[in-house]
Amino acid sequence: MCPAIRRTRVSDTVLAFPPPPDTLLPLELEGDMHLLSAKGFLAGGVSAGIKVSGKKDVGLLIAETYATAAAAFTTNKVFAAPIKVGRKHIRGGVLKGVVLNSGNANACTGKQGLRDANRMCTLAAQLTQSDADLFLPSSTGIIGHLLPMDNVFAGIRAAAADMGDSQEHALAFTDCILTTDTVRKFAAATLRIGGKKVTITGICKGAGMIGPRMNVPQATMLGYLLTDAAIPSKTLRELLARTVDRSFNCVTIDNHMSTNDTAVLMASAESGAKVANRAARDKFLKALDEVTQSLARQIAADGEGATKIFTVRVRAATSDADARKIARAIADSALVKCAIHGNDPNWGRIVSAAGMCGAKFSPDKSKLTLQGAVVYRRGTPVVFDAAKVSASLKSKEVIADLHCGAGTGEATVWTCDFSKEYVTINADYHT
Amino acid sequence: MCPAIRRTRVSDTVLAFPPPPDTLLPLELEGDMHLLSAKGFLAGGVSAGIKVSGKKDVGLLIAETYATAAAAFTTNKVFAAPIKVGRKHIRGGVLKGVVLNSGNANACTGKQGLRDANRMCTLAAQLTQSDADLFLPSSTGIIGHLLPMDNVFAGIRAAAADMGDSQEHALAFTDCILTTDTVRKFAAATLRIGGKKVTITGICKGAGMIGPRMNVPQATMLGYLLTDAAIPSKTLRELLARTVDRSFNCVTIDNHMSTNDTAVLMASAESGAKVANRAARDKFLKALDEVTQSLARQIAADGEGATKIFTVRVRAATSDADARKIARAIADSALVKCAIHGNDPNWGRIVSAAGMCGAKFSPDKSKLTLQGAVVYRRGTPVVFDAAKVSASLKSKEVIADLHCGAGTGEATVWTCDFSKEYVTINADYHT
Repeated sequence: MCPAIRRTRVSDTVLAFPPPPDTLLPLELEGDMHLLSAKGFLAGGVSAGIKVSGKKDVGLLIAETYATAAAAFTTNKVFAAPIKVGRKHIRGGVLKGVVLNSGNANACTGKQGLRDANRMCTLAAQLTQSDADLFLPSSTGIIGHLLPMDNVFAGIRAAAADMGDSQEHALAFTDCILTTDTVRKFAAATLRIGGKKVTITGICKGAGMIGPRMNVPQATMLGYLLTDAAIPSKTLRELLARTVDRSFNCVTIDNHMSTNDTAVLMASAESGAKVANRAARDKFLKALDEVTQSLARQIAADGEGATKIFTVRVRAATSDADARKIARAIADSALVKCAIHGNDPNWGRIVSAAGMCGAKFSPDKSKLTLQGAVVYRRGTPVVFDAAKVSASLKSKEVIADLHCGAGTGEATVWTCDFSKEYVTINADYHT
Repeated sequence: MCPAIRRTRVSDTVLAFPPPPDTLLPLELEGDMHLLSAKGFLAGGVSAGIKVSGKKDVGLLIAETYATAAAAFTTNKVFAAPIKVGRKHIRGGVLKGVVLNSGNANACTGKQGLRDANRMCTLAAQLTQSDADLFLPSSTGIIGHLLPMDNVFAGIRAAAADMGDSQEHALAFTDCILTTDTVRKFAAATLRIGGKKVTITGICKGAGMIGPRMNVPQATMLGYLLTDAAIPSKTLRELLARTVDRSFNCVTIDNHMSTNDTAVLMASAESGAKVANRAARDKFLKALDEVTQSLARQIAADGEGATKIFTVRVRAATSDADARKIARAIADSALVKCAIHGNDPNWGRIVSAAGMCGAKFSPDKSKLTLQGAVVYRRGTPVVFDAAKVSASLKSKEVIADLHCGAGTGEATVWTCDFSKEYVTINADYHT
């Protein structure tokens, strides 16, 4: 399930991804690919003064005409005002676009927050000669503060006045969704359907409060996925549900589900390629999975305070659900993540996490591999060269592979190590 | 549910507790109370060279004759060899004593580990003219290493050769169960039953890998509770199950359930007081709860890297189970714990944790109080003096009180803040 992370070719599907996590550098887009390489979309992003830093914080992304659309939202019972509005607006399966801000989550803001989310849509619709209920609003940032609407309105107007489909516009929109992120997150794929070239692009944000478990029609993970294929709304919903569940829902930084998590998939039909039969759907989904899984891995690699990506693979569990539970328990253990940070092959923490999560798990049948070295097998420690394994953990990606010896259940969860920097970031990010 | 923490008097029950957590100092026992103040028990503890530090690491605690007993063990599917042996030996409801080591958990050690746990019991029995199956073995420390049995055997012999019921002996036994603990943990209560004075004493250890969910007859939280009352095994089991569920099972440091968690309650009958009717049981349980809740709070206060205790009270939830889920989700959120560390009244993290845990929760009906200040009410932020509330968080105990406005469910969970020191301790505690 671990996606390719460089530009690779799978039959006629070409994937464009940022450098692998061993660089952790700001994204250098490969060649000419960017969010707006999917045809039929325009975007803009500006600084409206919501963020104290003066960085970009309001953005607008629209379809040149209209797009079929599907969205996935947080399942947190405490959900932000834009989530409530978005759930309503996505029902028709068609969107003009997305209007968003960062620096303020518009969550726990009561009736005024709801009015403000609606007013964002109304203004975006006015400026694009469209309808308010064809806009999906998104917000990310601090919880419990009313939006500074003067800034938001001025930002939406400025973004609308400078929209385009250039790389510059794509980057401006990408930047305006970032909070504690240190890098931009982007992935793209091109494939052919019915002889026609189809492009799928995606961006996302997220570094903290990351433990999304999103439902369709219900992630402060924000993800925006675009394609120029022609795909009916119903199919889009199916595709989004499936891809979210094996990408964004498999990444955790701190296991804290946000009030604002959102993933949106919009299809402009501009390529003329129709995703209308099963073969086309399967092919599209495969490419879409590569894009969303790359984005999920980019979130893990950019987790607050992260120095490395930690990939937990669980195999041969009694079911996929049990495999997921086990992988998640390991990826969410502060003890395990500190050990990974310290390059410590303390496998007892990993095995004990597997045993505590409620999933079926027999230590006597299981085998644990760290960076390819077997460290535990069938209830008994394996003699291994601790210094060598510790040295192998000094890598920008650490892979733990737990074989449960029980069935055919599988799961992969991506997270990061746990450093002092995480505490600095989150003890000092003041209200 | 928040127990008194100083010496207090509740009718004729006298509670002796260590200083409140605003000191976090090593325990100065008040007056003459110590673990062996409960009559009919002897203990010893020595340094056997298992711990590299040279600190005490092997201990023996026995009843002068025999004790009725009950025990609670971890529910982790990966459980240590001493847990397997202990579950078997506790079945009869009678124990001669406890034999234990720290510095090595004897977990994930296969058949040899099981043999070693049994051999500890056999030697302890020989030295005390008793039976091996009347000993409950305990181990705590690193997972996945075979016990150095030469050291263990020498330690048991040395401990047996110097047993007594003095404060010195009590402290020696208390010290030999510590790992990353920075303070001893002790609580005691005296009460009168049938005109006779009954003493309940307890010690415990635990600072990391603390997220016990113990079952009877099934915590590396180790807790040893003694009383000189006469209590039948069946009643002891009921009393232990009830007290564990509202004390040790309500403390979390890192939500990582250990392979070795164990709590034991032994009754020597030496006081001559019989706990034989409901009134006596209720009175005994109330005193026992005070002792175990004090110990649980002492674990939270001594959590790895902790600078303060964080008490999460949830009230008016739909059920006690939902209240527990909500309290636990808040207490286990790294984001919340970093905010508490940074004296940041970032209540959005608390409310969003409540909404993500699967319990019934309506943000529109709820109210959150931090150190007595209302910060959130019915889905809407409350205007409050952030500087003042932040200053109030600079306390050795922070109390968050979430009123759910839904029912009568209640729970209190104790944890600590999350500091850089936690990462230092756990990234450097090498295998």
